[in-house]
Amino acid sequence: MSQCQVTFLPYNRTIEVSEGDSLIRAALQAGVHINASCGGEGVCAKCRVQVEQGEVDGGTSERISREDHDQGFRLACQSTVLGDVTIRVPVESAMDRSVFDNRVSPRRTAKIRQMDFSSLKEQGLFIPPVDKAYLELPPPDAQNNMPDVTRLVEFLKQQAGEHKLELTIPVIRKLPSTLRQNDFKVTVTLVRPVRDDGKTMLTHIQAGDTTSETYAIALDVGTTTIYAQLIDLISGECLAEDGDFNGQISYGEDVISRMMFAEKGDGLEKLQQTVIATINKVLGKIIAKSGIDRENISTITIAGNTTMTQLLLAIDPSYLRRAPYVPASTMYPPFRAATIGIELDEHVIALLYPAISSYVGGDIVAGIMGTGLYRDEELTLFLDIGTNAEIVIGNKDWLACTACSAGPAFEGGGIEFGMRAARGAIEDFSLDPISCEPMLLTVGDVRPKGICGSGLITMIAVMFETGVINNRGKFNRDLGTKRIRENNGIWEFVLAFEEATQIGRDIILSEIDIDNFIRAKGAVYSGCMTLLEEVGFNMDMIERIILAGGFGSYIDLEKAMTIGLLPEIEADRVVFIGNGSLMGARMSSLTNRIRKDVVEVTKKMTNFELSETPSYMDHYVAAMFIPHTEIEKFPEVKRRVANWKEIISRN
Amino acid sequence: MSQCQVTFLPYNRTIEVSEGDSLIRAALQAGVHINASCGGEGVCAKCRVQVEQGEVDGGTSERISREDHDQGFRLACQSTVLGDVTIRVPVESAMDRSVFDNRVSPRRTAKIRQMDFSSLKEQGLFIPPVDKAYLELPPPDAQNNMPDVTRLVEFLKQQAGEHKLELTIPVIRKLPSTLRQNDFKVTVTLVRPVRDDGKTMLTHIQAGDTTSETYAIALDVGTTTIYAQLIDLISGECLAEDGDFNGQISYGEDVISRMMFAEKGDGLEKLQQTVIATINKVLGKIIAKSGIDRENISTITIAGNTTMTQLLLAIDPSYLRRAPYVPASTMYPPFRAATIGIELDEHVIALLYPAISSYVGGDIVAGIMGTGLYRDEELTLFLDIGTNAEIVIGNKDWLACTACSAGPAFEGGGIEFGMRAARGAIEDFSLDPISCEPMLLTVGDVRPKGICGSGLITMIAVMFETGVINNRGKFNRDLGTKRIRENNGIWEFVLAFEEATQIGRDIILSEIDIDNFIRAKGAVYSGCMTLLEEVGFNMDMIERIILAGGFGSYIDLEKAMTIGLLPEIEADRVVFIGNGSLMGARMSSLTNRIRKDVVEVTKKMTNFELSETPSYMDHYVAAMFIPHTEIEKFPEVKRRVANWKEIISRN
Repeated sequence: MSQCQVTFLPYNRTIEVSEGDSLIRAALQAGVHINASCGGEGVCAKCRVQVEQGEVDGGTSERISREDHDQGFRLACQSTVLGDVTIRVPVESAMDRSVFDNRVSPRRTAKIRQMDFSSLKEQGLFIPPVDKAYLELPPPDAQNNMPDVTRLVEFLKQQAGEHKLELTIPVIRKLPSTLRQNDFKVTVTLVRPVRDDGKTMLTHIQAGDTTSETYAIALDVGTTTIYAQLIDLISGECLAEDGDFNGQISYGEDVISRMMFAEKGDGLEKLQQTVIATINKVLGKIIAKSGIDRENISTITIAGNTTMTQLLLAIDPSYLRRAPYVPASTMYPPFRAATIGIELDEHVIALLYPAISSYVGGDIVAGIMGTGLYRDEELTLFLDIGTNAEIVIGNKDWLACTACSAGPAFEGGGIEFGMRAARGAIEDFSLDPISCEPMLLTVGDVRPKGICGSGLITMIAVMFETGVINNRGKFNRDLGTKRIRENNGIWEFVLAFEEATQIGRDIILSEIDIDNFIRAKGAVYSGCMTLLEEVGFNMDMIERIILAGGFGSYIDLEKAMTIGLLPEIEADRVVFIGNGSLMGARMSSLTNRIRKDVVEVTKKMTNFELSETPSYMDHYVAAMFIPHTEIEKFPEVKRRVANWKEIISRN
Repeated sequence: MSQCQVTFLPYNRTIEVSEGDSLIRAALQAGVHINASCGGEGVCAKCRVQVEQGEVDGGTSERISREDHDQGFRLACQSTVLGDVTIRVPVESAMDRSVFDNRVSPRRTAKIRQMDFSSLKEQGLFIPPVDKAYLELPPPDAQNNMPDVTRLVEFLKQQAGEHKLELTIPVIRKLPSTLRQNDFKVTVTLVRPVRDDGKTMLTHIQAGDTTSETYAIALDVGTTTIYAQLIDLISGECLAEDGDFNGQISYGEDVISRMMFAEKGDGLEKLQQTVIATINKVLGKIIAKSGIDRENISTITIAGNTTMTQLLLAIDPSYLRRAPYVPASTMYPPFRAATIGIELDEHVIALLYPAISSYVGGDIVAGIMGTGLYRDEELTLFLDIGTNAEIVIGNKDWLACTACSAGPAFEGGGIEFGMRAARGAIEDFSLDPISCEPMLLTVGDVRPKGICGSGLITMIAVMFETGVINNRGKFNRDLGTKRIRENNGIWEFVLAFEEATQIGRDIILSEIDIDNFIRAKGAVYSGCMTLLEEVGFNMDMIERIILAGGFGSYIDLEKAMTIGLLPEIEADRVVFIGNGSLMGARMSSLTNRIRKDVVEVTKKMTNFELSETPSYMDHYVAAMFIPHTEIEKFPEVKRRVANWKEIISRN
């Protein structure tokens, strides 16, 4: 796909986008506001722009007259870029030019950090925890009729220096026929121990040479979604990836409701069966996609939070949710995946990521291991934000972690029109500070149905910077726009009037919504503050932020700093790793070094229970403002707010 | 039961028996012949004796007249001893007195050697492979909310010096609720490793203190029978024992026919299910008998021959019966008994006795370990005789073993009237050397149905010593008795005429039967010879014989030497251990020392395949005589034969 230059007039702002990109998304990306209420479906017809040079595809509408069309007018939301193009946004020319100039910061999402497989290879660490060895054993004869197991073990000892081998009955059961199937030429699968003095498990035997086909599965068992990758252990490549919603959702959206369900009757069993069913569905898809022979899958590395892990293993999670929050275990021994119902061959070994505590689970540890932050010098803040936010701070010398309940606001819960980032969710937002007219972009470019987490952050940040709300989240009631109104005693902002929505009623953001949101971001920020303070550091010292989880991928970093969710830091020092749990599981499949290191990492990591840390409440109260009660902690936000204030006062 | 003196006249032979013993059995025990053809059922009425002093119970019969009854005549087979008694056997007074005097040697069976539990205790070796520990853990609180597993493991490390612990998912699954059931006071079950640097398995956790109840099961899986004992690991006592026929018998009597069945369709699966069903039946009985709570059973130690072991684990036995006779494995890792269908709690660990080769199995190794011969100075011949005979020779310095196919003769197979040692089987035998009238005793004292192995040995030995057969097993056709006759060209001896049998036809012993028997005993003897020669020894050097297996318990040692089955040795240097397999399994349940030693023993033991040892055939041919082609190897037999010859020639 070739790149195209799009220049927006009168701002003279140019941005490079891919051919075929939507014009309105290019505008938002460039920081150019175009009024748009219908999410990009072409219904409100507010997003008229004029093509001055070059050409776009589409954008015609019955709401644009023949004459206007001939003069180059199009609906921005219906137009896609074909080549270099110059677009004029028809705004009130009386508006102060500085209004436009002030919209300097284009949207900046965190860079996506890919797993560094090549560096793994360079460092000589591409030693998967499981490998295969092809052996040509001398067949037995009258002079040498030692047992099959002895023949195999002695050969491995002499030819490959394998001194501590462990075989199970099922492998021994297969041995006699497999050895004789191809004249004692066989391939064995060896699962390496974590400790150097541990035993190597011989988990599988196949006739002939199958060493070129060795696969592993990486599995992330999330509260909401299950993702899996099929990994080629020879090339290190991911051959297939797929995911699905965790079927347990029908028994409760979050971990707490799942734990409560598990305590009732056969709830625990049901939850286990349900998550196993989803896993089997996802595994079935990646195995089919990749076209490999499932017999050549050797291991499945699983990462999940502590609750998901216990439910997966059918371990009563009752004590996770009750003080003093005790998990059954944080380390689990390798076990055969089939024993818990995972539909993989009997020989496949499941390796589970260890956890730290009830609320800092294997998914977080997987992220820490997968990013390698535990080996880096830089002081890093690792954040995984969802209903719960897990926070890890540290570097190669020390690590500390905690978790806090953020509530469901980041996932759209507790917000009247909140929703998941699904089709129709407002995911991006801009506001004309003078007219208070919004620019809404939705997932799927359809009329809006609600607001998702990343949309909410942007929305509240923009409203705060432009003075539509104050630092306590209350609307400025003097703006003279019909969009800000009182409804049953509660003040609200109308994002889209009913005719521009999919749901036939106004979509609004109320002060209650904003308040819930502030509590959520306040919990996360104060969690970070408390953790730092407990280890004798403060926010200024953070050199890098790593965002993990689905949430982090779409948020506008500047907006996240504006609302005080993230500390102020240069945007290029923030990296986004996506599904850190899946990435860690994949990395562990590729190098046994991680399995060895993780034992040390979990020992080294200090866990803090915020409920037991008195300063947490003080930090929390201080964080219940936008961005914070001490705006000095956010000098850039302070500057932008002052700037807008001045501009608006001039208009 | 008080002891009684029984004196037999005119021989003036006195023997001590228990009150209530049968008079005819007392006679045979004393070496006194009384004609008796009906096995002790009182039908033939040949066994008339006269009570001269004292009293017997029973023995009246319509075949004894009123006058004779009043004079003290009774049927010996129907009489039981009440107190001291003097009995006259009415024999032809013309017969040379030396005939009686020559019958000097009373029946001598091997001494039964009981497991020496007290010496185990004295030596400080009463350390079962599994023990329990009662722990009072500090309950978690806000300052100390480590995971349950960590709490347990750390406590065991600090309080009990347990540094290498292995927990399985099922134990972890039980942990949270069990810990909280009795305020973190729990009992854990620990299975010790074989190697000192190995891991201790934590297999079970129970609320409260259950350390006083720790049980183990010892199980012998025999081709014919399954025996089990329930052992109290605190006192070392056997609380219950029971057995049953191995249900696999219906698929074949011996290991070869079982192996053949296993190769057909789902034969292997069927055989496994069948033996498991028998095992479960036997275990059910001993658990019920002992009245213990099955939850407190911690281990089951299993010993069986190599075929039985592979069938138990559903491992294809095809290669055991085909040259070069390769077992799948000789060592098996511990596994959870429930995984193969044994109806014990999920936590019960099965420990399998290792084998040496395809035909020297875990049952033999168990015998070697249980008797402790591997720690003794004396050069010992260990023999377990059945369809196959397993032979071990050695002492604390070296061990060698082999197995030979004896054929079914010792178990009554290949003998026209051969049968198991069941009701009606002739089990003991005497012969009047002049009249050739036999004295038959049967199992259950009923009319004879056939001949069992121990009966056969005695019968052939007696016939040989008295010259009824020669050293090639051929009848002396000049004795002038109607009992020796030709039938369809084959010479035979009538043991019982039809009217005295249960089966309505004559029970005979033919030259073909004797020939088959000689082949069987020749195979065993030449096996011993070959093995000794291979290691540079000979029969004279044997200092002790240990007989194991059901077969050894009833045989008359002198007779076994007469026929050349056993080398000549003083009878008190022969010990009988009964079911060595079960004994070894029980000993292993009581001391982990055996599990450690057995690894060394199996390494040290040299296995010889007789089929690969050329001298075996030469030894075999030389052993095809009674007792042997070189009678000089049996000086006592030579003397007895000469003695009889002289006596008979005088009559």
